Amino acid sequence: MKLMQIGVIGAGECDEETYRIAYRVGELIAEKGHVLINGGLGGVMEASAKGAKSKGGLVVAILPRKKDLCNDFADIRIATDMGHARNVIIVHSSDALISVGGGYGTISEIAIALKEGKRVASLKPPVVIEGMRVFETPEEAVNYCISSSVK
Amino acid sequence: MKLMQIGVIGAGECDEETYRIAYRVGELIAEKGHVLINGGLGGVMEASAKGAKSKGGLVVAILPRKKDLCNDFADIRIATDMGHARNVIIVHSSDALISVGGGYGTISEIAIALKEGKRVASLKPPVVIEGMRVFETPEEAVNYCISSSVK
Amino acid sequence: MKLMQIGVIGAGECDEETYRIAYRVGELIAEKGHVLINGGLGGVMEASAKGAKSKGGLVVAILPRKKDLCNDFADIRIATDMGHARNVIIVHSSDALISVGGGYGTISEIAIALKEGKRVASLKPPVVIEGMRVFETPEEAVNYCISSSVK
Amino acid sequence: MKLMQIGVIGAGECDEETYRIAYRVGELIAEKGHVLINGGLGGVMEASAKGAKSKGGLVVAILPRKKDLCNDFADIRIATDMGHARNVIIVHSSDALISVGGGYGTISEIAIALKEGKRVASLKPPVVIEGMRVFETPEEAVNYCISSSVK
Repeated sequence: MKLMQIGVIGAGECDEETYRIAYRVGELIAEKGHVLINGGLGGVMEASAKGAKSKGGLVVAILPRKKDLCNDFADIRIATDMGHARNVIIVHSSDALISVGGGYGTISEIAIALKEGKRVASLKPPVVIEGMRVFETPEEAVNYCISSSVK
Repeated sequence: MKLMQIGVIGAGECDEETYRIAYRVGELIAEKGHVLINGGLGGVMEASAKGAKSKGGLVVAILPRKKDLCNDFADIRIATDMGHARNVIIVHSSDALISVGGGYGTISEIAIALKEGKRVASLKPPVVIEGMRVFETPEEAVNYCISSSVK
Repeated sequence: MKLMQIGVIGAGECDEETYRIAYRVGELIAEKGHVLINGGLGGVMEASAKGAKSKGGLVVAILPRKKDLCNDFADIRIATDMGHARNVIIVHSSDALISVGGGYGTISEIAIALKEGKRVASLKPPVVIEGMRVFETPEEAVNYCISSSVK
Repeated sequence: MKLMQIGVIGAGECDEETYRIAYRVGELIAEKGHVLINGGLGGVMEASAKGAKSKGGLVVAILPRKKDLCNDFADIRIATDMGHARNVIIVHSSDALISVGGGYGTISEIAIALKEGKRVASLKPPVVIEGMRVFETPEEAVNYCISSSVK
């Protein structure tokens, strides 16, 4: 099986339930041996990274500014200094994406991912757009993503 | 009154009614003396640019690739060679935005614009996101945008 | 004759002589009816924009951050929020480029322009790279650029 | 000791000697436990990645287009779809950079790196710019880079 890069997207601040879900998504991606890609900041990004690291996973942060902005749970820090345009890079770098909660930034990533023909699994989505799949559990969301093909 | 830069966003292919609406949006922006910014391709972009040029307006195309891709109705051609990331530049360069129809790319632009606190007026929106305003006529949409402040 | 977009590149701070040369470059581009593109900040960017405006030219600023950063001499303000990556957009948007003095940022633009096969005319260049042409006067530099083809 | 991300830059095609030097640079970065970042294509990028992989290192490719463009020696593939603008991301993501040979693209990366205050060690440089350090051996170049601080 070839290694996948799974993007986890969501807001930089979130409530406890969302944090717990994102953490579990991170655990699952790592347990299944895949690389987790996210935006390197707080909230859902921090939670998913922590979850992945707790299972020995590899985490890549694609940051909106310089490297020093990154949370403490990324193995690789990609500094774009491009603000919202880094969202597009997260999408292109991910074979499939999982959104957990989220706001406007997350919506922009979901839209670009669908435009690029990538699978998007959403937990507690901020909006429902044709083509994305809404799931109730991290397990279902991760399984949907890892059954897509590596780009 | 200070000159505004109004973004017009929508799909690169569209039906006749959408084309006619976008053309009228372009006319109105030009008649009111503002600059029209769009993505420089076909469909809604071409229609709005043509409308603006028919009224002597100034049109700026922010292109996803090189300059040669541009339709024939832009005065200024900005070539980003950045694909979807050029959507973010359209948003940052616009004081307010009008969406006409549209698909995934348009949704990404609406989301980033709302995140940046800019007014978004939508005609026949592909999805409704909290914060955007849906209008029935080009006149209402343009008036909503030009009553916002220049950034 | 088709309208050209001529890029003028150089540092955000400069001495008086460099400022005067950049101003003259801007005047010449405007007098010959072409559009001036630059980075929208101070120094050589401000000087060339002022020169072009003094002759009724059209000036487009491609900014590294938001619109509010722009000097007062641009007609169109493109906000990239992409830092140094905006240099690449300046190059892609220009049919030919003129450098006046400059530092590291200018060198990066010259290199990308040459890689893209565009003419680069340099006045007081920060370094000499194979393929760029060094001139003594603004007139020669502008003439070299406007005799290239529109991309 | 904190992990460093060392950028290796150079042309997508190169002669055998340059390839061998880049391979050795990759080996050394991996032997010292650091992450190698490069542009993911052929020539110096492929050589340095192969060298790093031969010593069990971790290689991150920051690609100008989509993931499928990548050579076979990267562990992580970051797809920017931004052409030359990805050079800027390579610089921001690297704590220090080593250039091996190279052309216009490499010059643009060296210039941006120096502007950002990062160490640049060059082997067979395409041009000499104030601030970069030219070395004769991969060992010296790598040592110069890893004695700088993590950003």
